[in-house]
Amino acid sequence: MPAGEGMLEGLDGIPARLAETVESFALIDHHVHGCYADPIDRAAFEESFNEASTDPIPAFMTQFDSQPGFAFRRWCAPLLGLERHAPADEYWAARSALAPAELDRLLLPRAGVEHWVMDTGFSLRPITDLAAMAEESGGSASEIVRLELVAESLLAAGTAPDDFAEAFRAAIADAAEHAKGFKTIVAYRVGFDIDWTPPADDAVAAAVGRWAAQAQERPRLADPILEAFVVHAAVALGLPLQVHVGFGDRDLDLHRTNPMLLLPLLRWMNGQGPEVQRTPVTLLHCYPYHREAGYLAQAFDNVYFDVGLGVNYLGAQSRQLIAESLEVAPFAKQLYSSDAFGLPELHLVGSILWRRGMAAALARWVREGEWSEVDACRVFEMIGAENGRRVYRL
Amino acid sequence: MPAGEGMLEGLDGIPARLAETVESFALIDHHVHGCYADPIDRAAFEESFNEASTDPIPAFMTQFDSQPGFAFRRWCAPLLGLERHAPADEYWAARSALAPAELDRLLLPRAGVEHWVMDTGFSLRPITDLAAMAEESGGSASEIVRLELVAESLLAAGTAPDDFAEAFRAAIADAAEHAKGFKTIVAYRVGFDIDWTPPADDAVAAAVGRWAAQAQERPRLADPILEAFVVHAAVALGLPLQVHVGFGDRDLDLHRTNPMLLLPLLRWMNGQGPEVQRTPVTLLHCYPYHREAGYLAQAFDNVYFDVGLGVNYLGAQSRQLIAESLEVAPFAKQLYSSDAFGLPELHLVGSILWRRGMAAALARWVREGEWSEVDACRVFEMIGAENGRRVYRL
Amino acid sequence: MPAGEGMLEGLDGIPARLAETVESFALIDHHVHGCYADPIDRAAFEESFNEASTDPIPAFMTQFDSQPGFAFRRWCAPLLGLERHAPADEYWAARSALAPAELDRLLLPRAGVEHWVMDTGFSLRPITDLAAMAEESGGSASEIVRLELVAESLLAAGTAPDDFAEAFRAAIADAAEHAKGFKTIVAYRVGFDIDWTPPADDAVAAAVGRWAAQAQERPRLADPILEAFVVHAAVALGLPLQVHVGFGDRDLDLHRTNPMLLLPLLRWMNGQGPEVQRTPVTLLHCYPYHREAGYLAQAFDNVYFDVGLGVNYLGAQSRQLIAESLEVAPFAKQLYSSDAFGLPELHLVGSILWRRGMAAALARWVREGEWSEVDACRVFEMIGAENGRRVYRL
Repeated sequence: MPAGEGMLEGLDGIPARLAETVESFALIDHHVHGCYADPIDRAAFEESFNEASTDPIPAFMTQFDSQPGFAFRRWCAPLLGLERHAPADEYWAARSALAPAELDRLLLPRAGVEHWVMDTGFSLRPITDLAAMAEESGGSASEIVRLELVAESLLAAGTAPDDFAEAFRAAIADAAEHAKGFKTIVAYRVGFDIDWTPPADDAVAAAVGRWAAQAQERPRLADPILEAFVVHAAVALGLPLQVHVGFGDRDLDLHRTNPMLLLPLLRWMNGQGPEVQRTPVTLLHCYPYHREAGYLAQAFDNVYFDVGLGVNYLGAQSRQLIAESLEVAPFAKQLYSSDAFGLPELHLVGSILWRRGMAAALARWVREGEWSEVDACRVFEMIGAENGRRVYRL
Repeated sequence: MPAGEGMLEGLDGIPARLAETVESFALIDHHVHGCYADPIDRAAFEESFNEASTDPIPAFMTQFDSQPGFAFRRWCAPLLGLERHAPADEYWAARSALAPAELDRLLLPRAGVEHWVMDTGFSLRPITDLAAMAEESGGSASEIVRLELVAESLLAAGTAPDDFAEAFRAAIADAAEHAKGFKTIVAYRVGFDIDWTPPADDAVAAAVGRWAAQAQERPRLADPILEAFVVHAAVALGLPLQVHVGFGDRDLDLHRTNPMLLLPLLRWMNGQGPEVQRTPVTLLHCYPYHREAGYLAQAFDNVYFDVGLGVNYLGAQSRQLIAESLEVAPFAKQLYSSDAFGLPELHLVGSILWRRGMAAALARWVREGEWSEVDACRVFEMIGAENGRRVYRL
Repeated sequence: MPAGEGMLEGLDGIPARLAETVESFALIDHHVHGCYADPIDRAAFEESFNEASTDPIPAFMTQFDSQPGFAFRRWCAPLLGLERHAPADEYWAARSALAPAELDRLLLPRAGVEHWVMDTGFSLRPITDLAAMAEESGGSASEIVRLELVAESLLAAGTAPDDFAEAFRAAIADAAEHAKGFKTIVAYRVGFDIDWTPPADDAVAAAVGRWAAQAQERPRLADPILEAFVVHAAVALGLPLQVHVGFGDRDLDLHRTNPMLLLPLLRWMNGQGPEVQRTPVTLLHCYPYHREAGYLAQAFDNVYFDVGLGVNYLGAQSRQLIAESLEVAPFAKQLYSSDAFGLPELHLVGSILWRRGMAAALARWVREGEWSEVDACRVFEMIGAENGRRVYRL
């Protein structure tokens, strides 16, 4: 069975060529994580599709009663040998009967993703690496390096404050030899409403000194000067910079991750030489600020965005989100991602829902004569893979 | 005629079991007000379905030319013996020919609400109480106590500043004997961007002293320290706390009622013992911040939300709002309300529009195979009544 | 061929009378600019339908691959003798073969606009004036005066700081003899989060003194005191004040153009005598803050809004934006505009997309029985022309 067969079931009036494209075109998932390498229990499973909470799912409910829970039961249950919409208990029984790698091999290839651009940053549980993702999915994989993790490793290794700036630049220059880009989670650490002026090395040394002076088992970068420093150090190298925007866990102040608050950084970059000016900034997730993200993607030549994560979390209702992603941003400035983490269900369902949402929006525009079918297919391919291939130089 | 018969007229393709559920299932309206007890004139009537303005409707227009005006003429006119979509003048003539209680008895039962959780707070006009609502609608009713009103009554009664904190705690502990929960309109008084640290009793006494020193005929609590105090006093009792969020009259700074600004309060509660941690916080209305509210309902086990008020004010266009409410919040964390106030049309149309909007969204997902029909019915029942029954211990 | 014939092609189920109204009703475009008077090259053409960027379109993409690009190829190509959806190169070849005035005469009349209310403010290229717009389109035109331009002209003419306030008031009083209203681009210059208290004349003189002391070839008003001054001077005259809100080029801080930040100004106006209280404030564009704008249009008798600009930039996806515009604002408080600038494609496509979006939303509500067809036609006519005729006293 080809990867996407059956993905459009239940949708009426998709023109034939568009349907063929949507079902068979291989995607680039430009922002994704590995799958849990070890078995998990049901509590951990349910927590893994609640993005925002950091507490256990309370006893009065099950996280299965959510859009992603319903999507798993619809799209993954049949691959586990169950009826579609099988009850949650049956789903869990079938899923947990399989070893993690077996489950990955069952679900990942159906996503129809030819290349995964993986954030290999911190995880509380062991997760699969690039090689395993490639092998289990039948695709290939490349790496994104998380800036905060590099800085934290340097501090943990005892780097002196005065050496820090130089050591960080050297470390990410090394990383740039193999990585396809960098990622920042400044959204989680200090929010976007910080001073985005590039800090001088002595200001960095002083900030590192303060950071090092805190007793800490596991150092955590959460200083606005150091966040500005790591971001500026990264964009100087010209590789794409991924920025977590919007929807995430409750550690972040959602309203302080509105991407409009990145304007000072984006304007600064735009005022530099062509190297920095052209460094791609890819805004990740963005819900509920995806309209703002689309605006920035129109406003700055080097800005891109996706609506990953939100698609999985909106499930059947992701159709509207996907339509909203096709507003003011030029089509060359949009990317596909699932932002799946841990559960291969998310890698698969992210792809299915995005394909269906695109098919539904594009087909209506074709049927009503607003777009040609050729253009609809072309835009699907641009966002699904071609833009990502260009941006990440794959 | 059963309450909901004919409510789905004009909607195609609603599966039979779902249609039966949507039409016949009895709702709990978890946030609602009484009906005007005395006759009103046409000017007062039209002002009663403009939520945001505090001025008379200007002469160049009629408020009938609005989504709720059209919804009244569609759904209530036939119950008054008129053609559907009867002209505004005819509608007004038929409506004003009936005594308030007659009108209530005609419209309220059709809402199909088995229980009304009523905010009995301040009204400029006499409104019906719990007993009248129950009798006129054929349902039952329970009470929510407005925190600001309790504080204002204590000040008006001459409570000394040094006694205020203790007196307030005693008053709401008394209220908790009969009430199902509390409500705060901090949105109207100071906005959400205040210091949410629980104030000490001496700080409360000082703030009450300043408040009492102001010459005032009708004391109005509008002090951030006292707002924080009344909210913290309430959540210590464990009953649900309703919080007005978003859409309301222009006295509030809408952008300062973004529920994300409640994060410090929610995080503080989450850091307390299980009693406070589990105290339900129900975010009311939320438009146009319902996506943010849904996010908080996913992020915190004790947070719930509804899209009441907005449904009535969006009328035929409420379908999109209702679909948007079914995004990131787990289905156990959503509630139904009309937020009707004064006009029984609002109690009825709030129910009809919500049933239709749910039917339209859920039916599409069932038709396209994304959801099972059983799940669709179950989610309708959870949001329509079961979650409210659990949260308010009805 | 009547102006609107064929505009509804591809839309199913539009009731006959509504279709007739949507296709044939003559609009008032209450906020629009002239067309480029001289030929432009392809780079300039593509830049003209990227609103947000101020850089050239980068080499890796074409702006044709965007919603407005697809809309031009759909709706304008046939008028140039091409197949609908003709490739971008063919479209450009056909378009650039025509002289600007020829192109205007081909496209403008099809917009079905009987009156253009034109912002004649600054343009980098020569653009057509009122007389040319009227002649080329077969309609009529009137003028809106941009406040910042008046102030800048006075400074450039050497007006002394102490004379400035009086000179400005005299200049706009003169302008009020012929203009239909004023416009402010305070959004671009300082954002809305300024002190909206009316500044005294000596504060104005001091601010003008500081402004004049800056070396400047082309004076640019960007001072919060002076912005407050020009706005207050204008509203004292009672003519409508247009306010740019939201979507625009990246010079503005989008999040600081949220119309809620105008609350202090709107409340101040509401507290004045009837002249100022009734002065219309028309919020332009508003995307992505159109829900907030609709709220203000419900909250204040003198506030109006449109979703122009956004409609053209959302193209086929503008349907959702148009439906979202029909939420909480009474129908007497909404206006039609294209905000077309430079390209007659925008004048035409703005009209077509708005007619189609309205037809689609209204027809669904009629088909499902929510609205009567008579009301649907009436609301189309109110927003399409009647509200604008009343507000601008045309």
